[in-house]
Amino acid sequence: MDSIKIALLGLGNVGKGVWEILHRHPNMIKEYIGVPVEIKKILVRDVPKKRDIDVPPYMLTANFDDILFDEDIHIIVELIGGLYPAYEYVKKAIEMGKHVVTANKAVIASYGRELIQLANRRNVVLRFEGSVGGGIPIIATLTKSLAANEIETVVGIINGTTNYILTQMTRYDMDFNTALKLAQQKGYAEANPSSDVEGEDAAFKLSILAFIAFGVQVPPQDIPREGITRISEKEIQYAAQLGYTIKLLAAARKHDGKLDLHVHPTLVPITHPLAAVNDEFNALFIKGDAVGELMMYGKGAGSLPTGSAVVGDIMDVASAMMSGRVMPYAYRNSGKNLHINGEGEGEYYIRLEVVDRPGVLGKISTVLGNYGVSIASVVQRGRGEPVVSLVLITHRVERKQLDLALEEIKKFDVVEEVASILRVESRSS
Amino acid sequence: MDSIKIALLGLGNVGKGVWEILHRHPNMIKEYIGVPVEIKKILVRDVPKKRDIDVPPYMLTANFDDILFDEDIHIIVELIGGLYPAYEYVKKAIEMGKHVVTANKAVIASYGRELIQLANRRNVVLRFEGSVGGGIPIIATLTKSLAANEIETVVGIINGTTNYILTQMTRYDMDFNTALKLAQQKGYAEANPSSDVEGEDAAFKLSILAFIAFGVQVPPQDIPREGITRISEKEIQYAAQLGYTIKLLAAARKHDGKLDLHVHPTLVPITHPLAAVNDEFNALFIKGDAVGELMMYGKGAGSLPTGSAVVGDIMDVASAMMSGRVMPYAYRNSGKNLHINGEGEGEYYIRLEVVDRPGVLGKISTVLGNYGVSIASVVQRGRGEPVVSLVLITHRVERKQLDLALEEIKKFDVVEEVASILRVESRSS
Repeated sequence: MDSIKIALLGLGNVGKGVWEILHRHPNMIKEYIGVPVEIKKILVRDVPKKRDIDVPPYMLTANFDDILFDEDIHIIVELIGGLYPAYEYVKKAIEMGKHVVTANKAVIASYGRELIQLANRRNVVLRFEGSVGGGIPIIATLTKSLAANEIETVVGIINGTTNYILTQMTRYDMDFNTALKLAQQKGYAEANPSSDVEGEDAAFKLSILAFIAFGVQVPPQDIPREGITRISEKEIQYAAQLGYTIKLLAAARKHDGKLDLHVHPTLVPITHPLAAVNDEFNALFIKGDAVGELMMYGKGAGSLPTGSAVVGDIMDVASAMMSGRVMPYAYRNSGKNLHINGEGEGEYYIRLEVVDRPGVLGKISTVLGNYGVSIASVVQRGRGEPVVSLVLITHRVERKQLDLALEEIKKFDVVEEVASILRVESRSS
Repeated sequence: MDSIKIALLGLGNVGKGVWEILHRHPNMIKEYIGVPVEIKKILVRDVPKKRDIDVPPYMLTANFDDILFDEDIHIIVELIGGLYPAYEYVKKAIEMGKHVVTANKAVIASYGRELIQLANRRNVVLRFEGSVGGGIPIIATLTKSLAANEIETVVGIINGTTNYILTQMTRYDMDFNTALKLAQQKGYAEANPSSDVEGEDAAFKLSILAFIAFGVQVPPQDIPREGITRISEKEIQYAAQLGYTIKLLAAARKHDGKLDLHVHPTLVPITHPLAAVNDEFNALFIKGDAVGELMMYGKGAGSLPTGSAVVGDIMDVASAMMSGRVMPYAYRNSGKNLHINGEGEGEYYIRLEVVDRPGVLGKISTVLGNYGVSIASVVQRGRGEPVVSLVLITHRVERKQLDLALEEIKKFDVVEEVASILRVESRSS
């Protein structure tokens, strides 16, 4: 083979990054693989559209079949995003015997296992390092470098938009809407930000992480999630006073044959490595039974960082092609007997707005106690005002029990509002 | 093949970790590779010695040839440490056509390129993830995941002993000797700690990183290094007052065709991700031209963390063996034209002990200016005492110029001592 020929599906943000990287270091890439990598065709919706990169017009096509049936093309690089038609394209490419590299979290979260099995049957590989954590090599680390470990915990900040927003709110005492607008101006949040701020994007990525780290495929829509739209400056301030910072965490934790899996705004102790992950950065904290604690930190999105992961995948597949056989990753398959436990147990931060009257705390803690919720600490803020904030941090408890207790507590005349329920990450993780 | 048979050379700390991991998850490992991994022989110095793990006596041998000439053994895992006889064993194993996995920093730093070339000629692979950063997948990340990047910077905390000592000194206002004793009690420092505290261990690992990230092989003894034995509580306090924490950093930075390469105690801005890396943890901060900033954090030593990397390498090699061909890593080879620049330029922290007299600062800054050293900030501590501390932070300057200026400054009557010269890591890295 004189060259490895690839096709890109999509020429948006990540597609342009891949184009840029392949053209920046042709010699380095050639030295790595043995032959050059050449982009032969690019699928776009609108061929004549004016673009800010210098793509020869003959490369562009709006017809996927031009690529699918081109026998010269060895690797199809799917960068369209979204579930459809990306899923069909990936599936057809694999069926046609082409290797596929994708950065598509929706496709992998929803159809990852099926597509990998299909690829194994067709003797091709499906690689998707760019689908979680942008340029951070999360998939390779969990799959290959930590292959000797039973993974116990994977918890991280895997949505850059919400981390940017929370960082601004924390650093500049900003409200959510102002921080969101700023994120939109900076290009970190989309015009319709709901998938990011409601935790949906993080749930997709967590579904992929659960597959990679624990061998289970959980539909993203089944993962309990809560976004950050209801986080107020008040919560951030109270959290800070208690020694915590608020982060949107995606967490998967194995214990006693169960897998807790959820996305929640969480109070992270300021001494925890994840507490220092700010702005648009992502980070993943992993606990393995041999390696212990491992954290990886970097840019979780963006044209070049995600392009770095995609081109890394392309180069790995291409160099394996040159040496003979391309090996599939050996994904963990041990999750068959894991019971998916959703939110599971946790420690919680609760803010109640209550009338400042003697005996209120006693009534509330009695009800909590009746449901097995024990209190680790209590702080009251706003003394002297008619309505005060009562901030409780609980010991470990099932969310269901907590919710039942709060239902009852809500009915008290003295309780104006259950203003906030947030997870608390324990200091030891 | 019904199983992959391996031999361990050495059954010390890491050897026991490898034994433990292989026996903890036999099914997981078998599922990954397709067949089980079996330890067939173990080279030890003292066969009859009593051990705290349950090794069948027939596995043990004191004769390397028993392993070298055993045709059943596919992978030799070298965990003896030190340069000799480990180097000869690795070389002979490769010549005999066996794959080699090692965690030996001395062998790889000194003979890495030669051994890799030998392995390529013999169609076997040499893998050494455990030689730098313990369980942190540094080699795989730099070599494979970031293959699409030109690496610009690799800077990190790659010696856990010194990081533990500096953390204790910082946290508890402890002097160096007390912290060293504590590290020895906890098993983080050896009875003879000189290789760690003098920066030699870090220089070995930095030599490997320079090879992996920049394609240059620099003998570890040629890397400028300074240890932490002269760091006093005073330095740590002054650094803290200026917004820095002191870490032993190993740094490799490419710029203008030059590669700065050195190990130094360094003032790290507290907002820098490396500043939060405490206790015995290691971390590596990488800048690539596509991925941007990436940091990896974890346990840089220890039986199980390093064992995790070693067994990861074994599993990768074994699974490739099962699929047909074992591919060598494509190491970067682009460093041929890089000029090794040693300490290069940097910002410096200087503490002078001077007589508190008007005009002293003027005299000193005039001399510095004569040598092109410009001052970014000055703080004087101990006002009113006869001898005061004058702390200067410089702008970027060549170390040689700084040393020439300080030679002259030392001769002033009012200058009692040039008490400390430390590097300063800039905020932007």
